[in-house]
Amino acid sequence: MIRIGIVGGTGYTGVELLRLLAQHPEAELKVITSRKEAGMPVADMYPSLRRRVNIAFTEPDTNALKQCDAVFFATPHGVAMAQARELLEAGVKVIDLAADFRLKDPEEFARWYAMPHSCTDLLQEAVYGLAEVNREAIRSARLVGLAGCYPTAVQLGLKPLLSGKPLIDENHIIADCKSGVSGAGRKAEVHTLLAEAGDNFKAYGIGGHRHLPEIRQGLQAISGRPIGLTFVPHLTPMIRGILATLYVRLLPDAQGIDFQALYEQHYANEPFIDVMPAGSSPETRSVRASNQVRIAVHRPQGGDTLVVLSAIDNLVKGASGQAVQTLNLMFGLPETTGLTHIPVLP
Amino acid sequence: MIRIGIVGGTGYTGVELLRLLAQHPEAELKVITSRKEAGMPVADMYPSLRRRVNIAFTEPDTNALKQCDAVFFATPHGVAMAQARELLEAGVKVIDLAADFRLKDPEEFARWYAMPHSCTDLLQEAVYGLAEVNREAIRSARLVGLAGCYPTAVQLGLKPLLSGKPLIDENHIIADCKSGVSGAGRKAEVHTLLAEAGDNFKAYGIGGHRHLPEIRQGLQAISGRPIGLTFVPHLTPMIRGILATLYVRLLPDAQGIDFQALYEQHYANEPFIDVMPAGSSPETRSVRASNQVRIAVHRPQGGDTLVVLSAIDNLVKGASGQAVQTLNLMFGLPETTGLTHIPVLP
Amino acid sequence: MIRIGIVGGTGYTGVELLRLLAQHPEAELKVITSRKEAGMPVADMYPSLRRRVNIAFTEPDTNALKQCDAVFFATPHGVAMAQARELLEAGVKVIDLAADFRLKDPEEFARWYAMPHSCTDLLQEAVYGLAEVNREAIRSARLVGLAGCYPTAVQLGLKPLLSGKPLIDENHIIADCKSGVSGAGRKAEVHTLLAEAGDNFKAYGIGGHRHLPEIRQGLQAISGRPIGLTFVPHLTPMIRGILATLYVRLLPDAQGIDFQALYEQHYANEPFIDVMPAGSSPETRSVRASNQVRIAVHRPQGGDTLVVLSAIDNLVKGASGQAVQTLNLMFGLPETTGLTHIPVLP
Amino acid sequence: MIRIGIVGGTGYTGVELLRLLAQHPEAELKVITSRKEAGMPVADMYPSLRRRVNIAFTEPDTNALKQCDAVFFATPHGVAMAQARELLEAGVKVIDLAADFRLKDPEEFARWYAMPHSCTDLLQEAVYGLAEVNREAIRSARLVGLAGCYPTAVQLGLKPLLSGKPLIDENHIIADCKSGVSGAGRKAEVHTLLAEAGDNFKAYGIGGHRHLPEIRQGLQAISGRPIGLTFVPHLTPMIRGILATLYVRLLPDAQGIDFQALYEQHYANEPFIDVMPAGSSPETRSVRASNQVRIAVHRPQGGDTLVVLSAIDNLVKGASGQAVQTLNLMFGLPETTGLTHIPVLP
Repeated sequence: MIRIGIVGGTGYTGVELLRLLAQHPEAELKVITSRKEAGMPVADMYPSLRRRVNIAFTEPDTNALKQCDAVFFATPHGVAMAQARELLEAGVKVIDLAADFRLKDPEEFARWYAMPHSCTDLLQEAVYGLAEVNREAIRSARLVGLAGCYPTAVQLGLKPLLSGKPLIDENHIIADCKSGVSGAGRKAEVHTLLAEAGDNFKAYGIGGHRHLPEIRQGLQAISGRPIGLTFVPHLTPMIRGILATLYVRLLPDAQGIDFQALYEQHYANEPFIDVMPAGSSPETRSVRASNQVRIAVHRPQGGDTLVVLSAIDNLVKGASGQAVQTLNLMFGLPETTGLTHIPVLP
Repeated sequence: MIRIGIVGGTGYTGVELLRLLAQHPEAELKVITSRKEAGMPVADMYPSLRRRVNIAFTEPDTNALKQCDAVFFATPHGVAMAQARELLEAGVKVIDLAADFRLKDPEEFARWYAMPHSCTDLLQEAVYGLAEVNREAIRSARLVGLAGCYPTAVQLGLKPLLSGKPLIDENHIIADCKSGVSGAGRKAEVHTLLAEAGDNFKAYGIGGHRHLPEIRQGLQAISGRPIGLTFVPHLTPMIRGILATLYVRLLPDAQGIDFQALYEQHYANEPFIDVMPAGSSPETRSVRASNQVRIAVHRPQGGDTLVVLSAIDNLVKGASGQAVQTLNLMFGLPETTGLTHIPVLP
Repeated sequence: MIRIGIVGGTGYTGVELLRLLAQHPEAELKVITSRKEAGMPVADMYPSLRRRVNIAFTEPDTNALKQCDAVFFATPHGVAMAQARELLEAGVKVIDLAADFRLKDPEEFARWYAMPHSCTDLLQEAVYGLAEVNREAIRSARLVGLAGCYPTAVQLGLKPLLSGKPLIDENHIIADCKSGVSGAGRKAEVHTLLAEAGDNFKAYGIGGHRHLPEIRQGLQAISGRPIGLTFVPHLTPMIRGILATLYVRLLPDAQGIDFQALYEQHYANEPFIDVMPAGSSPETRSVRASNQVRIAVHRPQGGDTLVVLSAIDNLVKGASGQAVQTLNLMFGLPETTGLTHIPVLP
Repeated sequence: MIRIGIVGGTGYTGVELLRLLAQHPEAELKVITSRKEAGMPVADMYPSLRRRVNIAFTEPDTNALKQCDAVFFATPHGVAMAQARELLEAGVKVIDLAADFRLKDPEEFARWYAMPHSCTDLLQEAVYGLAEVNREAIRSARLVGLAGCYPTAVQLGLKPLLSGKPLIDENHIIADCKSGVSGAGRKAEVHTLLAEAGDNFKAYGIGGHRHLPEIRQGLQAISGRPIGLTFVPHLTPMIRGILATLYVRLLPDAQGIDFQALYEQHYANEPFIDVMPAGSSPETRSVRASNQVRIAVHRPQGGDTLVVLSAIDNLVKGASGQAVQTLNLMFGLPETTGLTHIPVLP
């Protein structure tokens, strides 16, 4: 059994991680820390875990965490980079669900997250946690910075188009993304109240969202070429789910390609990626509470604009499921271990 | 034109009051105060009011308020009782949307609201703001403590049964009430986030909700007899609306009564109360964004239990519409002035 | 492996049954019939099942069903009673998720379901499928009529009060129940459209809902005494979940009882029933997508009215999970086999 | 008073038209027809209209309609073109809320609506009902084919960019649109059930939606140049509202333009169009239940892609409010008569 520690864990990615790990056949939750809730049984905060998770939150305590084989950080940005080194030196593998180890350029990190990066050497070592792009590197990593939710949906939606020679105008990619409100976290804020976000729809972060540089970096890593991206996220009156609607313009030479076949072949061996039949429209509920990604590719009126739809559950494939998938790879387990939940529909 | 001041006004009852007053033919909004948002144009906080409400929030300033004919308090509990005296002495009429002037017994107020009452003389003078019960007293009042949202739905649902000789077991009334989340106000809290309250249903305040003593006091005032009440409020994943499902047991002597006729006759002249036809089930959306109350009375299987359904919009008849209805009465206007909006459905 | 057949299966209880059975270690889905959708792969109708359920709907065909060990009817009322005999005679065990085998009195069935009962002998043999009440009978049954969704929540909420000598006024039980819209099934109807049922709340079936006689029969079977029940169901703008708020009046002799202890002891060995700590309020989401029941018992102000809250997922414990629990019992498996899903929250 | 007839009127655009007309100071509802509901009082179907709309649905009867000054068709496609001629010949002005008189090319109509156009002469005469584009033509029209909901949001969002010399790549406009489910109408269908469309998000009509040719025609009429458009509508789990997110690429010569100023100047005199301050994000609820349009223009990172956000209430400015605005113009009333409702928020 892999001994697991979680730092943070009172938020939505935390409770989702607990749900997944409590059903994982090879993981054993040993410690979960929360400065604010120390002493409270986890199941008192989350009654859904009653009789299934029997430990309590404890004060942050590096010694307890050092007894673990793997530690997840489900914390605000900035916590993992302060604590990772000590754990790594103790031989613990670290998976950060926040953004501390996503952006490779420390200056870009500082600009978007409004804090300096405190361990740039580890940043260089860290592997970007998106298995479908970085599988082999993850297997041998000791520190992983997990991909964000929007970046997961967008990169997986576009990867088949960027993995070979240029097929699209890579300077003008448009990612119109829609997320459920759980993406904003379990924070007491006005704009995500049901009375504010319910029966309502809006864009946000249009001028620049923190996931923009991450997506751009990821797409450039895939293609090896510079990428120009317009990314507009939207807040949707639902709890879970992201749908990315991606618009790209085909290069003249690419107009003869069968993109349905391209996508199907590209992802033929991916256990979590489902390229849907031509003409499909993936619904977010078709992946709800599961680690699945469903993708469809369209070419309206046979024109030169391709529309790719990519649906994930932001808390699973966009966060905690991805974390478990990464854990499996890092510990040599079959990648789907503990991640075979069938989506909950309706 | 009645010159209007609003103290507070950044919450949901505030913005609803602004919506109603901006369309009221006899009211002119002169000042709206908010310590926190002073200087911000109202329409910057509420874009729905752009081009319709052109003033800005100002620092709380009694002098400006004294220039008004009427001042509404859309504030947390405790504010109105600190400021009402000075305004009343300046000849301003005061309508409090909070609870400061609802409970007649200062000790009961102190017990349920965890603060002493600071002006018990005014408390005795204050008129309880529920026009259908207290119309004449409101006409001549200078200080009104508006009925709460649940108390409005419950009292109006039960009034025809309590207004004459005993018809029901008044010691065992059950009020099972369901409210949309706007009833919790525009406060940054976790439990009313869309990701918490959406797609979810729960009871709360079962052991004792602040509206319990208010409802009991109101029902006793109607009947002139002691009332025993079990009141269980529930949080419903919708924005606006209250449905009260009321259960009462008929006394043996009352079993021959035609309750449909009783209700229709009792409310025949009420402009805002609609007794629906026998067999109806009032939906909250049928009163959405309006000052209407819709009531239906059922006697399942002809037994000795009566079921009364009472639906209101908690922000209109349960708060700001009731405030305007009260204003109309206090200033001798037709009671429906500015309150003729047709419910928004769907 | 238990060979499974499903008749019907295009509705919500069908897809939920498929979700549960596809993850059940001892069940193997052999055939699923739908006259209307024959030929369509199940996963084309429900993309959530892609790569997990690989068979197609077939024409209703008794021969194929006879090869199964167990057949579930997830059909409209009236289908199971027409087909059960032939299957039973072939040695197949039958579990009906509809109402054909719930009401023991054929005349009552005819009255509430507007059709005569076509096999009253089987009706007498059929076991009522609510394991927490009827466990032993289910183990040896060959035909089970599963409890309905509201009846499950109400009976389990009241059972500890009715199992011994009289504690409450059993002539005046009130069950105020709230259900998500999936309870209405996957039928093209106007009143459950999102634009109708969303952001809206209403009671329905006040004069008499089909679950009323079923609940009454169940409660009487538990207590062995006549029961008087007022049952008012409400439609809630959410997808899954039932909360039953139950009001009972204590008999004078019962007022000294510790009801929290009574409930905890009564259900101490039930794998799916969680009696929550005193003062709790079970949320429907705390059981979402799981077979759990969460119950809390309150006595507001220490009075003589007891309030019991009972939460289930109407599609799991209220239908398909209960079906699998029943299957496990009928085939001698541990009762929780394939039913250990942790609720999905948020 | 303008005597009004409505053909159809049992759907959402019908009830919304009734809400608006019942509060319109110059309109008097004389007749409303529905073959299916003939005889039923309107308020029995829509309790929100109780005491406000006192007539009943009647059998379709051209004679009664001929007594009106204006007749609205709130019917399925194909009805208005069958009945318009007779009404026009009787001197009645006709406003069609369906699509019969939107597409100028009868072959295009036939292709997208799967029926031949039965009165191509009237089609040529009909004026396209979008006041902000066609105000003068509407004033003198006797037959108006109202703009659709998506077309209204998209055309008004793009009009300032297309009204002069070329500023953008007009061959590659992207309109990513999101609509509440009331846009699908009050039809008994599975895909818009709350249990299907709630807590879910998806695109639809990607290969070709009926509003595509209408938008293209409208944009071409504005610019006088050919337009290439990719239009992807999405179904959003809310009741009312459309947000269009529009992406256009700037031509090199246009990169020095102040687009905020361009939009503000372009719409300076429009009573229903609110160009929001730079950096704004219009929410659909900020126009809920009103005829307002709110637009914001963004240029992320100062690049060559412009993002325009355009929000309307699909049932008001996208249908029935637009119908009343058109009526006002056709009868020489101030354009805002009966349309001054303040949006309902929250």
